[in-house]
Amino acid sequence: MNFRSDNESGAHPNIIEALSEAFSSGTAHSYGADEWTQRVERRLRELFEKPDLVAYPVATGTAANVLSLACCTPSWGAVYCHPQAHVMVDEANAPEFFTGGAQLHPIDGPAGKLDPRRLADALAQPVYGVVHHPQPAAVSISQATECGTVYDPVEIAAIATSAHRHGLKLHMDGSRFANALAFVGCSAAELSWRAGIDVLSFGATKNGALGAEAVVFFDPGLAREFEFRRKRGGHLFSKMRMLSAQLDAYLTDGLWLANAQHANAMARRLVAGLTPLKGTQLLYPVNANEIFVVLPARVHDALQKAGAQYHPWPSDRPGERAWRLVTAFDTSSKDVDKFLSLAKAASAP
Amino acid sequence: MNFRSDNESGAHPNIIEALSEAFSSGTAHSYGADEWTQRVERRLRELFEKPDLVAYPVATGTAANVLSLACCTPSWGAVYCHPQAHVMVDEANAPEFFTGGAQLHPIDGPAGKLDPRRLADALAQPVYGVVHHPQPAAVSISQATECGTVYDPVEIAAIATSAHRHGLKLHMDGSRFANALAFVGCSAAELSWRAGIDVLSFGATKNGALGAEAVVFFDPGLAREFEFRRKRGGHLFSKMRMLSAQLDAYLTDGLWLANAQHANAMARRLVAGLTPLKGTQLLYPVNANEIFVVLPARVHDALQKAGAQYHPWPSDRPGERAWRLVTAFDTSSKDVDKFLSLAKAASAP
Amino acid sequence: MNFRSDNESGAHPNIIEALSEAFSSGTAHSYGADEWTQRVERRLRELFEKPDLVAYPVATGTAANVLSLACCTPSWGAVYCHPQAHVMVDEANAPEFFTGGAQLHPIDGPAGKLDPRRLADALAQPVYGVVHHPQPAAVSISQATECGTVYDPVEIAAIATSAHRHGLKLHMDGSRFANALAFVGCSAAELSWRAGIDVLSFGATKNGALGAEAVVFFDPGLAREFEFRRKRGGHLFSKMRMLSAQLDAYLTDGLWLANAQHANAMARRLVAGLTPLKGTQLLYPVNANEIFVVLPARVHDALQKAGAQYHPWPSDRPGERAWRLVTAFDTSSKDVDKFLSLAKAASAP
Amino acid sequence: MNFRSDNESGAHPNIIEALSEAFSSGTAHSYGADEWTQRVERRLRELFEKPDLVAYPVATGTAANVLSLACCTPSWGAVYCHPQAHVMVDEANAPEFFTGGAQLHPIDGPAGKLDPRRLADALAQPVYGVVHHPQPAAVSISQATECGTVYDPVEIAAIATSAHRHGLKLHMDGSRFANALAFVGCSAAELSWRAGIDVLSFGATKNGALGAEAVVFFDPGLAREFEFRRKRGGHLFSKMRMLSAQLDAYLTDGLWLANAQHANAMARRLVAGLTPLKGTQLLYPVNANEIFVVLPARVHDALQKAGAQYHPWPSDRPGERAWRLVTAFDTSSKDVDKFLSLAKAASAP
Repeated sequence: MNFRSDNESGAHPNIIEALSEAFSSGTAHSYGADEWTQRVERRLRELFEKPDLVAYPVATGTAANVLSLACCTPSWGAVYCHPQAHVMVDEANAPEFFTGGAQLHPIDGPAGKLDPRRLADALAQPVYGVVHHPQPAAVSISQATECGTVYDPVEIAAIATSAHRHGLKLHMDGSRFANALAFVGCSAAELSWRAGIDVLSFGATKNGALGAEAVVFFDPGLAREFEFRRKRGGHLFSKMRMLSAQLDAYLTDGLWLANAQHANAMARRLVAGLTPLKGTQLLYPVNANEIFVVLPARVHDALQKAGAQYHPWPSDRPGERAWRLVTAFDTSSKDVDKFLSLAKAASAP
Repeated sequence: MNFRSDNESGAHPNIIEALSEAFSSGTAHSYGADEWTQRVERRLRELFEKPDLVAYPVATGTAANVLSLACCTPSWGAVYCHPQAHVMVDEANAPEFFTGGAQLHPIDGPAGKLDPRRLADALAQPVYGVVHHPQPAAVSISQATECGTVYDPVEIAAIATSAHRHGLKLHMDGSRFANALAFVGCSAAELSWRAGIDVLSFGATKNGALGAEAVVFFDPGLAREFEFRRKRGGHLFSKMRMLSAQLDAYLTDGLWLANAQHANAMARRLVAGLTPLKGTQLLYPVNANEIFVVLPARVHDALQKAGAQYHPWPSDRPGERAWRLVTAFDTSSKDVDKFLSLAKAASAP
Repeated sequence: MNFRSDNESGAHPNIIEALSEAFSSGTAHSYGADEWTQRVERRLRELFEKPDLVAYPVATGTAANVLSLACCTPSWGAVYCHPQAHVMVDEANAPEFFTGGAQLHPIDGPAGKLDPRRLADALAQPVYGVVHHPQPAAVSISQATECGTVYDPVEIAAIATSAHRHGLKLHMDGSRFANALAFVGCSAAELSWRAGIDVLSFGATKNGALGAEAVVFFDPGLAREFEFRRKRGGHLFSKMRMLSAQLDAYLTDGLWLANAQHANAMARRLVAGLTPLKGTQLLYPVNANEIFVVLPARVHDALQKAGAQYHPWPSDRPGERAWRLVTAFDTSSKDVDKFLSLAKAASAP
Repeated sequence: MNFRSDNESGAHPNIIEALSEAFSSGTAHSYGADEWTQRVERRLRELFEKPDLVAYPVATGTAANVLSLACCTPSWGAVYCHPQAHVMVDEANAPEFFTGGAQLHPIDGPAGKLDPRRLADALAQPVYGVVHHPQPAAVSISQATECGTVYDPVEIAAIATSAHRHGLKLHMDGSRFANALAFVGCSAAELSWRAGIDVLSFGATKNGALGAEAVVFFDPGLAREFEFRRKRGGHLFSKMRMLSAQLDAYLTDGLWLANAQHANAMARRLVAGLTPLKGTQLLYPVNANEIFVVLPARVHDALQKAGAQYHPWPSDRPGERAWRLVTAFDTSSKDVDKFLSLAKAASAP
């Protein structure tokens, strides 16, 4: 009953097998001039219905985010994001490092989503071309958000319109893009470039890969410096198939979406079982595979005693204790049901 | 007959299998708090006979080098290396980036080896503490060198003595450390910290791994900032076992050394067959798994026609054409012999 | 009637004369090894009653701020400041640049002052030593603030206590430190290190100098890397007396404080004349030499027509137009009175 | 008898007076929107016969050099310069800092001048567009060189041709441009953009100013990012007339050239008196205002005893002791003659 994080999960057998095969098949051209890497770009072009997109495999979500952002802003630029955004809170200033010192500017909003009106207000400041002020350069949104909520295409478009009106680029940290798409149910294109996304960190690690993400530039012009930035960041793999073979399998026969659908279904199952219990309360709507929930003390104690694992989460209300539960592609319904049955038993009077 | 590069090789079955197993075994703590990562450090402590060393897995050789160097120099420091060093020539200014702008200072020397007297002269300049001048901070040597030669412990110690006398740290880019050790035949400790190395990029990718290196700090104090630098560089893996499981297998039962011994043996076999042929000439002594050789035009043409693959290499003498041949853990003696038989046939009058 | 900014004022005759003399007196040692630079440090030690402080002249307020901050935070650090702080809003990411990418984190509060409770909450987050999160490293406050208000020693101490409890350093952007001190009326020591300031950007440019500031380290240990950082930033002057001679005169016979007292008096005179007029309203209390005021349209129009100069300022209330008036050491009471008489005439029914 | 450095000299009375007047004349627009700054650009356009050049005042030579170079290279670029170049040896990695980590690559050559054939060889390497290698981006030459020699227009053009053929920009560190021009005797245009210079650090500090240099972009397109880089570097002066008033006077009635002609004449007078003495030997031809000379021990001792001041200089030949003598705009012929008479007396048998 490990609900600590989707980055503690293993990897999907198809992906493991593809990786094993790729490295058992003799020599291959290095640094990305191999068949797997080319196939990944082809698959992403089909998936996103955009034949001119440019895609690059990288190994970590932080690398994907910060190499993307570095292509979107000068060193004297400002990047707008939610104050809980991973890029702002969880990447040890990697964005500042890779952008040469751009400023991250928080734009708050409920449930992890950047409020488009606050963004519009911020972007309306008369700072453009004025040498004293950080120059608005990019907006970054997380999909799914750090609160487990999901932007729909209309919400993205509202942000994109603001951003593009002022010449900013729109980046999506899609470390859980699959989970978001599984929730919204539209096409990958509709949830990304058709809604105004310029560059996407397309996650796989949390959703069945060992460690692989793709940076997807819907605007190929934006990618011009990417390859130098990747190399200079130490993120160019000599045996690139280590990343590409994973992504290739991930994108084959809809595995990526099926994995996310499963994880989301497990989250919904947890929610359905927990919310009827007295004293539980969700902090945010559960759209994807993360649940933020207040648990009564005796429920929590019983679960801990039985070995259930999950992380605490800060709650705004004094005295209240909240928790984060994360499901993954390999969360079993058996574990979920056991968890629920323990919770129910502890909750009963 | 692919002798282009050891980074075009596949991966050793033991390593592939270990990786597959690691990711088929359910959840694991993230970010390195897993059993594989701990085991790797333990194995390295044993191998290097140094119970207090600190080791970190990273994915690329560039990451290993530049994160190491960043722990050795302030932004206003100077790092001394051979003008052909990978850090100077082949990493797109990643060292400058990660050190915040330290200066790489070339110290020439024959056959890819930094000349200890030139180093001593450079370090004797009265620049210490003088605010105008880059402050001497570190020396970096490649083992094996970019010319395929190998420093023996005495040569390393000569450099280390110079460096340490002036308070500099000594880094070894050991992307082919295994091949170097297989040549010298001493212990890993003797070729590293006992000779004065402070921090080592311990390579595995070119020698049977899919993509994994270890940064090994023999001076644990030097590692103080490493974890922040790694995260900030986007090089901290959430599913760290992707790297550690590889290194774990690599270090098991001497696989790492056996792989290198095979690669070196294949190189020696090539040399033994090529050098008797008229018109061939080695540019450098062949110590490890790289051969730099002048080939007569008709030998080269015949080999190309038969599908042999290898890269050109700049030669100093006008009109002469030189080539680089690299062997790897999976180079077959059959391929070597076929190559030699073609060369011999083409060479015969 | 120029009330646009104190950085549009000229320079005080004593300072001009000192500078002229310094450069008419033959050769002098370069890079700060001159008598003026030594005298400035001595004067600052006396003024601040701190014999072990270390002080360095620099030419711009931005240089003073960012070189100070760079000594207070690692590249993976967080620096807390008010969202209107000059370092956050008006320095084009110079702090991020000089710190190698530290994150500026806004802590709001009324009237330009950082709210100590919000700061305490932010610093209570469990992020210390956790490699994912920017590491709390420093707090920066502006004195006087960007709203023209002044922190008193008790307010500073509240912030300092929070900061120091968690190991952070406290920086003061004192580009208008003289104006602040003239308002509070305590000693320079009480408004700085005795209240907990670790490093101060001690301004002179806005208060009678041509261009000179001093970085004052009350904690000499913090200054260790300053000289390398200054040189590397291009901020070490070969003919340092250009800066030091200004500061020397500025600190002689209380000129620095007298200048600020005059500027503040002119601001009070403006306030006294404006506030009785119908429709005027101060946005913030006027503590130092800046006035933020709503003016009725016909008052503003009459002033503009008569050639009065001042900048617009954003007002929170829709439809309302606010303005910033700044006085300086050389603002004449004649100009003030003329301004007031025009305003009064236009305001009369 | 101070021949230590031209940066120990005072300032020319005209420049001091202009500065005093500028700051006694009331308020002025800040940040360069003042009459002095505009006039300086106009004067430079006339002097260089280039009506579209763009010029910016900065305070230090390092600032001028590194802000220039930052406009010429990406962070993954290489900048070629002589191994003795000020930017490589005397700026504490400021170039690396401001360029975001570009690599300085030494190209040797006799007497402080970059050898154009070695440069051509370096630029002929097949590294362009190859992501592993630092990308050749700029060449920087010093005029006069660090050995006191001067490039003539033909020598500059040879370097420019190489640079431009490969798309590199050519920067001139002209901290002693006036002395160089006074030696060559051509027009300022011929010694700069007509010979192929793209951006010039035009020095004044060493030649009669208190502290002022101009960055002169002959290619205005190259200046696009300059203003943001200057601000972000802390090098934008609020009271810009502090720099511009100096440059304005410097450029008035040929003062700048007259100052340099005097300094050069004093150097020639020294040379004429020293070289006949037995045991003296020049290390390099004396073109401008620096003399590098071997002095017999008893001559040196006598000079020291009489209070003459000059710096030691490294000599290649063991046992030999060399010295650097620098003259300036305010070196008196009386001092020179006294120096020579002492030397002559000590040299006589």
